[in-house]
Amino acid sequence: MNEGMTLYSYWRSSAAWRVRIALALKALPHDIQPVHLLKDGGQQHQAGYRRLNPQARVPTLLDGERVLTQSLAIIEYLDECYPEPPLLPATPRERARVRAMAQLVACDIHPVNNLRVLQRLEQQFGADGEAKTQWMHHWMADGFDALEQMLADNPATGDFCEGDHPSLADLCLVPQLYNARRFQLDLGPWPEIRRIESNCLALPAFSDTAPEQQPDAE
Amino acid sequence: MNEGMTLYSYWRSSAAWRVRIALALKALPHDIQPVHLLKDGGQQHQAGYRRLNPQARVPTLLDGERVLTQSLAIIEYLDECYPEPPLLPATPRERARVRAMAQLVACDIHPVNNLRVLQRLEQQFGADGEAKTQWMHHWMADGFDALEQMLADNPATGDFCEGDHPSLADLCLVPQLYNARRFQLDLGPWPEIRRIESNCLALPAFSDTAPEQQPDAE
Repeated sequence: MNEGMTLYSYWRSSAAWRVRIALALKALPHDIQPVHLLKDGGQQHQAGYRRLNPQARVPTLLDGERVLTQSLAIIEYLDECYPEPPLLPATPRERARVRAMAQLVACDIHPVNNLRVLQRLEQQFGADGEAKTQWMHHWMADGFDALEQMLADNPATGDFCEGDHPSLADLCLVPQLYNARRFQLDLGPWPEIRRIESNCLALPAFSDTAPEQQPDAE
Repeated sequence: MNEGMTLYSYWRSSAAWRVRIALALKALPHDIQPVHLLKDGGQQHQAGYRRLNPQARVPTLLDGERVLTQSLAIIEYLDECYPEPPLLPATPRERARVRAMAQLVACDIHPVNNLRVLQRLEQQFGADGEAKTQWMHHWMADGFDALEQMLADNPATGDFCEGDHPSLADLCLVPQLYNARRFQLDLGPWPEIRRIESNCLALPAFSDTAPEQQPDAE
């Protein structure tokens, strides 16, 4: 029986990338099992995968026989089971700030812009490529404006979103910025965000897990 | 100096209702400060409120001088600072399941259907009331299908989403079902979800914090 970890991932999925960074920071050995979100009508919809993940999304993490879904829940699980280095700070107040910044990205930017929503905009409203890009830019700019203010106005911000160690918030931010660049959003208005991204990408746990470094990258 | 708690809330906000339930279950005294999301172009956009919550959303919780945003982050904070009764179960595996179910609602249903998204669908694509309802039904049905399977297939499900005590998952589920009913979604296909909702609403912490019970209800 394989007692190791397997991550069901797609190279361009920003939710999967969050978990890849967590596994890398904690140096947890794992296999990557690619799930192609577009090929064959979307491999995430196949019955075998849906048994693991009823939402038909990536990522899914197998830790031995445990099946874990939802990227933020997976990362909190990893942080509880494999606490070094911690991805959440020490006090409730600091943790609340980190989780709020993570959720700003993971609840209020990413789900409104992901593949299934863009597909639905096309099906229901006939949205073309330009309309979809405009939609995505709107939500990213809205979220980045708020996050920039949260970072710039708070002495708790350091080299990273909270202090001088990467946390759950940075794990959400960096993949979202990759998406922003992929869809040609000018990141000029958000210097604090860009500074923190640059500090993150200097760490191999972030850069070595990037989409282009994945076995299923195209 | 007021050392108590103040919740900035809107009666129909399901994210605010989640926090109201948490405060009630933990019997934490607090004031409700209504923020009308539609009046005056949306009171959440006013400068005074934006200083507390740069995202211009509800809820925001003040705990003494601490300013907390994002409903799930607020609830985890409350659970850490005021642990009785716990809103997350005892083991990492159970907590991961609860958080995944909570995030299924709080990341993948709610943010795609909330006021700002519906307003944007109207502005950008001219969506009328019927198109907006169709959009909401699609995402709710998609999420409820997956959640029903997660609940029905797992012996960890009890009177509530996890075991026999309400958790973060139930706090997200019940307000989402209120939204579903408000927009006339037939909940027939999801008997496990309805069973758990009924158990929740039998508790005053859920029923007494419902939208219609709020000081700003219309």
